[in-house]
Amino acid sequence: VRVTEQATTADAVVDSYFQMWNETDGDRRLAAITRAWTPGGSYVDPMHVASGVGELDAMAAGLQQHYPGHRFRLTDPVEAHHDRARWGWEFVAPDGTTVISGVDFAQLDQAGRLREVVGFFAQPGGAA
Amino acid sequence: VRVTEQATTADAVVDSYFQMWNETDGDRRLAAITRAWTPGGSYVDPMHVASGVGELDAMAAGLQQHYPGHRFRLTDPVEAHHDRARWGWEFVAPDGTTVISGVDFAQLDQAGRLREVVGFFAQPGGAA
Repeated sequence: VRVTEQATTADAVVDSYFQMWNETDGDRRLAAITRAWTPGGSYVDPMHVASGVGELDAMAAGLQQHYPGHRFRLTDPVEAHHDRARWGWEFVAPDGTTVISGVDFAQLDQAGRLREVVGFFAQPGGAA
Repeated sequence: VRVTEQATTADAVVDSYFQMWNETDGDRRLAAITRAWTPGGSYVDPMHVASGVGELDAMAAGLQQHYPGHRFRLTDPVEAHHDRARWGWEFVAPDGTTVISGVDFAQLDQAGRLREVVGFFAQPGGAA
């Protein structure tokens, strides 16, 4: 039961996390960020660093402006153990082509929300 | 140059990390742990938790006892950005078959040594 609850929570949190990246309505994007992240939660990947709701929101909004109509989607199921989780993702153009893929690794708070997400990009020819 | 130095350090540290798992000589295994990890560094995966040289050494030695002749090896190149790194691995039986594969995520100290490693196992049918 414990494992199932943990997995369910992680799935819901990661669903809200993808809404942060994909939601273009400002109010709904902020609501998704609040559901997904612990207050003061932070994100880092090779190109971005963001900490707290305001920076997370600006990061997602900025990416949406640069890549209109693009969406992030999950490529393999969320795996969680202890207070950690990982999942694979891809960033898809409006015509369906994958622009970039990668993997995210998260540390969770006691409520299962994101304390930190670290993103890695897939290497050409390598696994994500 | 900065990126190259970082990659080189991470590669050397991860090489020592694999020596921790594979080296059956106690003194050489301890030396590998000291090279790879920051003092008090910790490891967690779905089956193990270890913190500090003694627990890391006992974890590696225990696995070697349960799986004689098996070895961990890198399956895709170490990726590093900021103070983070990730790499893929597989655990191979003496006859060459892969017993399990997965991915490790690491947080590094200022010298590039492992502060924490979080391991995830590949899901059947999914990506590592």
